[in-house]
Amino acid sequence: MKELAWTEAVKLASPYSYALAVSLDAAGRPNAMGLGWWCYLSAEPKLLGIAVAPERYTHECIRHTREFTLCFPSKLMALAAWKCGQVSEREVDKFAEFGLRALPAKVVKPPLIKNCTVAFECKLAQEVATGDHTLFVGKIVATHGNPDKKEHLFTQFFSKLVSMAHDGGCDWKLDRTLGLPGQLQR
Amino acid sequence: MKELAWTEAVKLASPYSYALAVSLDAAGRPNAMGLGWWCYLSAEPKLLGIAVAPERYTHECIRHTREFTLCFPSKLMALAAWKCGQVSEREVDKFAEFGLRALPAKVVKPPLIKNCTVAFECKLAQEVATGDHTLFVGKIVATHGNPDKKEHLFTQFFSKLVSMAHDGGCDWKLDRTLGLPGQLQR
Repeated sequence: MKELAWTEAVKLASPYSYALAVSLDAAGRPNAMGLGWWCYLSAEPKLLGIAVAPERYTHECIRHTREFTLCFPSKLMALAAWKCGQVSEREVDKFAEFGLRALPAKVVKPPLIKNCTVAFECKLAQEVATGDHTLFVGKIVATHGNPDKKEHLFTQFFSKLVSMAHDGGCDWKLDRTLGLPGQLQR
Repeated sequence: MKELAWTEAVKLASPYSYALAVSLDAAGRPNAMGLGWWCYLSAEPKLLGIAVAPERYTHECIRHTREFTLCFPSKLMALAAWKCGQVSEREVDKFAEFGLRALPAKVVKPPLIKNCTVAFECKLAQEVATGDHTLFVGKIVATHGNPDKKEHLFTQFFSKLVSMAHDGGCDWKLDRTLGLPGQLQR
């Protein structure tokens, strides 16, 4: 193991799942931002966090509405999802321009996006300043999905976007229920 | 899109990368815990967060030493990495029992692990209580890796472990530098 530059290390630690954080602006318009910096934070209550830079339009939208959805786009929506990570809602109406279809959420005001593999509805529970980003901690109040869609998108530090199966789609795996594959039983 | 149970939603949102958080206990022994709940939190300064439940041995170790490394195991170490997510250092000396080889880090006291694809050295910068977990925010002070190892491990909500390439190893991708693949240019 040798010392690596930051960019190379982050590349090797890729990919991570690429999701769209959907919020509403003060005018009630939906806004979708592509992000890769998210993770689960608690099992009970169910919490997840998304890291958003203060200069993003999404930052002011979430502060305003205090709700968001986190939607995992399927390959079907790859191009629209990609564009959502490239431009700001300040410049373009992403839902209209990129062909995203809003679906009503069950509990929160920001919508879900049609054809996503899975989506979480979140109410803002906590806000933490972490360096040049804000971690918005959301309480997950409803979960939705398309169980027939087995893939969603992953990013390599925002330079690439790939579609992968939820189980990795690999020819071997360690599996808690099935036991260990032969070549790993040593 | 239909409403899903939590477990099914989390399965569909999988996989996410599986890393080993390495800390030192009060006796100076290294301890490696498998986890999937981590993400980057800031670009400048470089911060990442790992979510650790208070009952974990790692929790008291990080509070004690206030440093940790986050190591991404390669397929070579899949079985050892898997076991590190199953048992506690309170019960077994994981480095000795599972054949993990400690390598000295550059800045922090907890070691790196030999044969990892990539590893981050972190100093504890912040601690945030989030539901039933604690988010340890680490300032990344050094980065290491094996650029010849192109794969690392991913988990499906801790029920499976798979090895995947850092670029997803897929036959198509959106790429910022190469432009869009033909079938997605519409």
